[in-house]
Amino acid sequence: MTERDARTAEPPPPGLGGSFVRLQPHLRALDDFLRSQLDGFEPEIHDLVEYCMDTSGKRIRPALVFFSGWRGPDQIPAALVQAAAVVEMVHLATLVHDDIMDRAELRRSRPTAARRYGSDSAVLLGDALLAQAVHIAAQFPSTEVCQVVSAATRRVCAGEIAQTFRRGDTAITRDAYRRVIDLKTAELFRISCLLGARLAGYEDGYVEAAAEFGRSLGIAYQIYDDLADFFGEEKNIGKTLGTDLAGGKVTLPLLVLLEKLSGAERSELLEEIRKCRTPQFEHRRAQMRGHGVFAVVAEDIRAELKKGMAILSPWARLEPALLLGQLGELLRQQVDNLRDQGESS
Amino acid sequence: MTERDARTAEPPPPGLGGSFVRLQPHLRALDDFLRSQLDGFEPEIHDLVEYCMDTSGKRIRPALVFFSGWRGPDQIPAALVQAAAVVEMVHLATLVHDDIMDRAELRRSRPTAARRYGSDSAVLLGDALLAQAVHIAAQFPSTEVCQVVSAATRRVCAGEIAQTFRRGDTAITRDAYRRVIDLKTAELFRISCLLGARLAGYEDGYVEAAAEFGRSLGIAYQIYDDLADFFGEEKNIGKTLGTDLAGGKVTLPLLVLLEKLSGAERSELLEEIRKCRTPQFEHRRAQMRGHGVFAVVAEDIRAELKKGMAILSPWARLEPALLLGQLGELLRQQVDNLRDQGESS
Repeated sequence: MTERDARTAEPPPPGLGGSFVRLQPHLRALDDFLRSQLDGFEPEIHDLVEYCMDTSGKRIRPALVFFSGWRGPDQIPAALVQAAAVVEMVHLATLVHDDIMDRAELRRSRPTAARRYGSDSAVLLGDALLAQAVHIAAQFPSTEVCQVVSAATRRVCAGEIAQTFRRGDTAITRDAYRRVIDLKTAELFRISCLLGARLAGYEDGYVEAAAEFGRSLGIAYQIYDDLADFFGEEKNIGKTLGTDLAGGKVTLPLLVLLEKLSGAERSELLEEIRKCRTPQFEHRRAQMRGHGVFAVVAEDIRAELKKGMAILSPWARLEPALLLGQLGELLRQQVDNLRDQGESS
Repeated sequence: MTERDARTAEPPPPGLGGSFVRLQPHLRALDDFLRSQLDGFEPEIHDLVEYCMDTSGKRIRPALVFFSGWRGPDQIPAALVQAAAVVEMVHLATLVHDDIMDRAELRRSRPTAARRYGSDSAVLLGDALLAQAVHIAAQFPSTEVCQVVSAATRRVCAGEIAQTFRRGDTAITRDAYRRVIDLKTAELFRISCLLGARLAGYEDGYVEAAAEFGRSLGIAYQIYDDLADFFGEEKNIGKTLGTDLAGGKVTLPLLVLLEKLSGAERSELLEEIRKCRTPQFEHRRAQMRGHGVFAVVAEDIRAELKKGMAILSPWARLEPALLLGQLGELLRQQVDNLRDQGESS
């Protein structure tokens, strides 16, 4: 949903590239499948779907499906391609609706669907994408994929709604923040791993571990994304910085800063979050540097990744577990890169 | 979607009551089931779902499910209750999104979800309802219900999008109008009948006939609804008249009027539809009376109902076919009532 990487026009970020290279044939198969799905849409919405179903996204969730269910480089099981298409299409639908809510102008360097076709059509387009995602899920022999995907979609929406309600709310706790990102981001990561592992026929213990790893990776990823909103460089993360502060969205970096501040300083920041005062992004960033906020948040990300790795460790003999572990390691490196950027900027 | 009956607070319209009486136990079972589903939603969205899942709607689609699969008054098969809940919840989701697009203030005499919780939350609430509808559909042993419901939802969205694009478009033909209402309204009527008949275990021939009847009933119903926007009485249909003309929506009554007018009169109406001129609702209504528009449109409704009845006629020995036929007859009566109202007003 809100992770910004999807809004950039670039290929996967440096570091992720290496792992993704071996996924090229899988992602090509996914693109072919998604393209073949276009004909499943009514002629009335064909162009709209094609417009937003471009291939420049990072395909992180499909990558999780393929890695979790990895059986070797020559194996591109149709079931995995299909499941990857389902999670990607659910993700696309949420992006289309997200952009309406954020009044966003651009996504992947093009006008958002809401800008291009109007927000009314974008609401319906998102619905149609969601419906088609389920329709693909319903092509599996059993109802399991439908069950998993529909419950996950409901949870993603619940997380987004909670986040919407909490804009400008300064009473939010770390637990509440965590719950929101667990629902809105980690849930789709979780089921991507679950479906990949399950559909590739792996044993139940690994399937559960992969799912829990996916959840941890999703939480870590969202915290990283929230950190990048303060410490990233616009040219690297491809979006305007400071949108969370400006939108009254209390993410972990702000929570930690609030914990560090006191007296008038704290009151001023609370007023900015409540939108009773113009947000002072650069000032907050300087304060964060002064109070070592980056290190605290980065430690949280590392702890979450470590937890995910530990869950996978009993399955280290399986190649997919190794591949998932590499993805975790890559995210850890990205946090380090962000620190280097953040310190120098 | 756009049929206005759902926006009134009253019980089923006079005439429909008789048939609905025998459905009371079924509709109570449906309400109990829907209420039990509330716990399936995350605590974050529980209140929002409860707010929009009130019981004062007419439950036309559930009625179609129950009548199509009728096996006698004492039979309330769990599968039918479940299917009725699915179609009703999809319908609810589309209403929630509809109200955002229409900037509607009230539904069933209460503020719409968009008014009450903000349009951002309403977008997500609609998504969550759609997801939960699919989740209920995925509880059936096979994927058939998921397949049917997801394809229908996609088609409903396609119809709504086409309608959105055509606002203010005066080049619309009768065929184009018919295609839109087939998608946006008749599709859910169709699958309600299909699922009811199928899940009650009836033979394939009847299942197909029931589905096609549902489609005809849905088309007839939407034309009736569009006619009521000009010829209804606000106290009876529970909404402001003339919204289609004001919104640049070319429905059958307007199409017929356009066919009857020529010269400057026609040009003026075209400009009203294109929103280049203030709509003159009372004047248009008077013109429609003068040109016998009501009779032409009513004849179209009757022809559609007749077509539906003919499809059912080979199954007249089945009680559910008789019950469906009665619903068609009730709609025919409602058109007559509308004429009597329309002539006297």
